Amino acid sequence: MREVRVLEIKQSVFADNDRQAELLRQELKEKGVFLLNLMSSPGSGKTTTLLRTIEMLKDKFKIGVMEADIDSDVDARAISESGAKVIQLHTGGMCHLDAEMTRQGLAGLETGDVELAVLENVGNLVCPAEFDTGASRNAMILSVPEGHDKPLKYPLMFSVCDVVLINKTDVLPYFDFDMEKCREYIHMRNPEAKVIPVCARTGEGMAEWVEWLEKEAADWRKHKTE
Amino acid sequence: MREVRVLEIKQSVFADNDRQAELLRQELKEKGVFLLNLMSSPGSGKTTTLLRTIEMLKDKFKIGVMEADIDSDVDARAISESGAKVIQLHTGGMCHLDAEMTRQGLAGLETGDVELAVLENVGNLVCPAEFDTGASRNAMILSVPEGHDKPLKYPLMFSVCDVVLINKTDVLPYFDFDMEKCREYIHMRNPEAKVIPVCARTGEGMAEWVEWLEKEAADWRKHKTE
Repeated sequence: MREVRVLEIKQSVFADNDRQAELLRQELKEKGVFLLNLMSSPGSGKTTTLLRTIEMLKDKFKIGVMEADIDSDVDARAISESGAKVIQLHTGGMCHLDAEMTRQGLAGLETGDVELAVLENVGNLVCPAEFDTGASRNAMILSVPEGHDKPLKYPLMFSVCDVVLINKTDVLPYFDFDMEKCREYIHMRNPEAKVIPVCARTGEGMAEWVEWLEKEAADWRKHKTE
Repeated sequence: MREVRVLEIKQSVFADNDRQAELLRQELKEKGVFLLNLMSSPGSGKTTTLLRTIEMLKDKFKIGVMEADIDSDVDARAISESGAKVIQLHTGGMCHLDAEMTRQGLAGLETGDVELAVLENVGNLVCPAEFDTGASRNAMILSVPEGHDKPLKYPLMFSVCDVVLINKTDVLPYFDFDMEKCREYIHMRNPEAKVIPVCARTGEGMAEWVEWLEKEAADWRKHKTE
């Protein structure tokens, strides 16, 4: 596998994260960079989903990926094989990224020609939900083995996401997972959230997800490309 | 289902968590209370594992359970059916419990006659590992669908645990999970960690886990019971 660049992220000096996030979002809009903040529990399939998404969108957008992890670079190595631009962000034990840390990551990635940037956030359903990264849109992945009750237990995460992918639908027969209940619980937290069942491994449902992402990114970049 | 008591946990006033944890651990030892701190990702099966553990040990120990969650009381309701004493702890958005918060929980549980107390920590592989709760032993559950690479990505969690249960072994045929690699990665982080593959749903491997727990709790309580 290729060598990947690793950036050690420093703690933010800004107390007003919401303001920093708004500034970053505005800057990205002006530059025509759509930034997706991808969140989930550890092991829900963020990297596999991302690999297939890149495969399906790489002819339409120049893609850049920031892989945030406390340690290791296994995900960044996997992504580097896809042809997307990638950088590994090490958070130094921190459980989330805020807007200033995301800004450091974007600078490390060198977004010059990037049109669609993805931040694969630290695997955690609690802390990343509390910090606006400045992303254009928030997405999360809930995988079938985790159970349909998670929106009841991690309310903030579901309420801040524009889209929820329910991944690993290929193993539905082996788990007590109620898709309708899951949709209901998600919409209790966030009536506007789009819910898309997918299987990143088999590709099931991925077309609907990619269509959503493509439209959101194109709309975001409209004023730039017009 | 029964009504369960809910305790809203307050933020700690102590800066020296390690000292508070050591004090609590000593107090629990003197009272003959063994406290297990049970950690994992969301959806790895903490509650199901705990239900079966209670079933297997309820004639040997008086058991008390603290269910820590950001919101909801679904787990505490499930545990209350087992006959164990239970209290739901709401962390008010906080992503972990420290020693003082655990002390609040134990006071709420009223540990008078409890011999084996379990803290089901917030589902999170990052923050709970950073705070000593004062527990006698730390346990974590990694479930097969999460993948065998997790010790590479969440090093601290694996290094602080005395025992790692690898849960949901019944779905091993449907996932690319390498048990030997997983053991190897865990032991890279923590050569002393005991690794026990289990399936809380079918009961496979649970005897070995319960035997470990029973011995640890009995040893802890020895000076009290002699």
